[in-house]
Amino acid sequence: MGQGMVRNLMKAGYRVNVYNRTKSKADALIEDGAVWMPTIQDISKNSDVIITIVGYPKDVEQVYLEDGIVAHAKQGSTLIDMTTSSPKLAERIYEEAKANGLSSLDAPVSGGDVGAQNGKLSIMVGGDKNVFETVRPIFEAMGQNIVYQGQAGSGQHTKLSNQIAIAGTMLGVCEAIAYAAKAGLDPDQVLKSIAAGAAGSFSLSNLAPRMLKGDFAPGFYVKHFIKDMRIALESAEELGLLTPGLALAKKRYEELAEQGGENFGTQALYKLYL
Amino acid sequence: MGQGMVRNLMKAGYRVNVYNRTKSKADALIEDGAVWMPTIQDISKNSDVIITIVGYPKDVEQVYLEDGIVAHAKQGSTLIDMTTSSPKLAERIYEEAKANGLSSLDAPVSGGDVGAQNGKLSIMVGGDKNVFETVRPIFEAMGQNIVYQGQAGSGQHTKLSNQIAIAGTMLGVCEAIAYAAKAGLDPDQVLKSIAAGAAGSFSLSNLAPRMLKGDFAPGFYVKHFIKDMRIALESAEELGLLTPGLALAKKRYEELAEQGGENFGTQALYKLYL
Repeated sequence: MGQGMVRNLMKAGYRVNVYNRTKSKADALIEDGAVWMPTIQDISKNSDVIITIVGYPKDVEQVYLEDGIVAHAKQGSTLIDMTTSSPKLAERIYEEAKANGLSSLDAPVSGGDVGAQNGKLSIMVGGDKNVFETVRPIFEAMGQNIVYQGQAGSGQHTKLSNQIAIAGTMLGVCEAIAYAAKAGLDPDQVLKSIAAGAAGSFSLSNLAPRMLKGDFAPGFYVKHFIKDMRIALESAEELGLLTPGLALAKKRYEELAEQGGENFGTQALYKLYL
Repeated sequence: MGQGMVRNLMKAGYRVNVYNRTKSKADALIEDGAVWMPTIQDISKNSDVIITIVGYPKDVEQVYLEDGIVAHAKQGSTLIDMTTSSPKLAERIYEEAKANGLSSLDAPVSGGDVGAQNGKLSIMVGGDKNVFETVRPIFEAMGQNIVYQGQAGSGQHTKLSNQIAIAGTMLGVCEAIAYAAKAGLDPDQVLKSIAAGAAGSFSLSNLAPRMLKGDFAPGFYVKHFIKDMRIALESAEELGLLTPGLALAKKRYEELAEQGGENFGTQALYKLYL
């Protein structure tokens, strides 16, 4: 996703430094004018706004807190983590950044590769509102539905709410389509009856047709969705909230991953019902 | 729902006989020109097309098979059950109707009271295709999205697929909104971030705002949704399909009913998370 986001920032006129563990992945961007920085420390020292989108919370923790961005960024810099990650970690980075004279926002996204490429990401932002307003043009270069959600961690909480809604919906969509197929109906015809009404959802309209074609390519990886659901479930437990639908969806996706499905798209949950 | 449907049939020019256990509920229709029939036997003998929408499969069985419509309808009549009911029962009525020289369709609907009133029901039809084509104008008087789904029982199977999709989606929507509230976010603001993207659904857009206002009025009754999920789960089991998401949703709604929530709308599932 980072590639599309960098490209949209350059298109909007920003000078962009780039760093990635695997330099070759940045080659095309460098050819187009992005400036390669060989280490996290270098990119931290030489940038006014530092934007990250990495894999797991442990990666976020590493690049920010282990001799990383927070230690090396210039006074007054703004740090923006767009990874889907732990709200608690976002709060911790916010505090440590503040102690070092830096600003920090958590700003996870939805909309996937396609949204990143065409600048149509939905961006959910937590942190200080004045900082959000200052860097808003940067978000506007990458996204369309940009909503300030509150104090540090609120962007992550919003994204987790998003993933919790998807988790339950995917159970419903897979079971509805599997039921239709098992009952001997033509599931494409069933979609004509049900997709536009009270059962309708983004997943039913966009992912069910892929399930029915046997197209399980990602899209959004099963392994990343499991990561998100794990963070959401931990966070819900910390808040004292029981989420049995989320727990079930996570368990089912883990079954799928154990059967070798972790690199499929999330619509591959349907395979458990075949 | 029957009232809105009868009114739309009369508006389309059909002469409509009506029967209901509680005559007073039909009074307004009778004033507007519907003809009251005092018994099921009377309405069966005196109508060319007999349309039913009742409560539970046992009610369907009673009005059709226990000295009811199948025994008393005129040769050549068409029977249309629009109740959400058991696919197996629809097949049985189809067979018994056929043996008596009658035609039968199962044609459950979605769209609720409002859809019934404004003639915008989605109608899912099972039975013989030529019979469907013959009575299609009758469906067109009541609905907008009218889809023939296949042999007897297919309309019911399609409606159950619809309810299965809703069941999972409602788990996701309730847990997502409960999580947002518990995390201290403004859930209405969260909806701005998530309702239009990959987490989007009819339920998230239409029912989550009611949950947040504490508006638990039906809409679609909890007790009726439990009935539908029970039929769906039994039917899935008969087909050898495991539907753990549906099973969980049914269990949660039964908890809600045990707590006195059976006459609320389905959005009241949210109360379990408060």
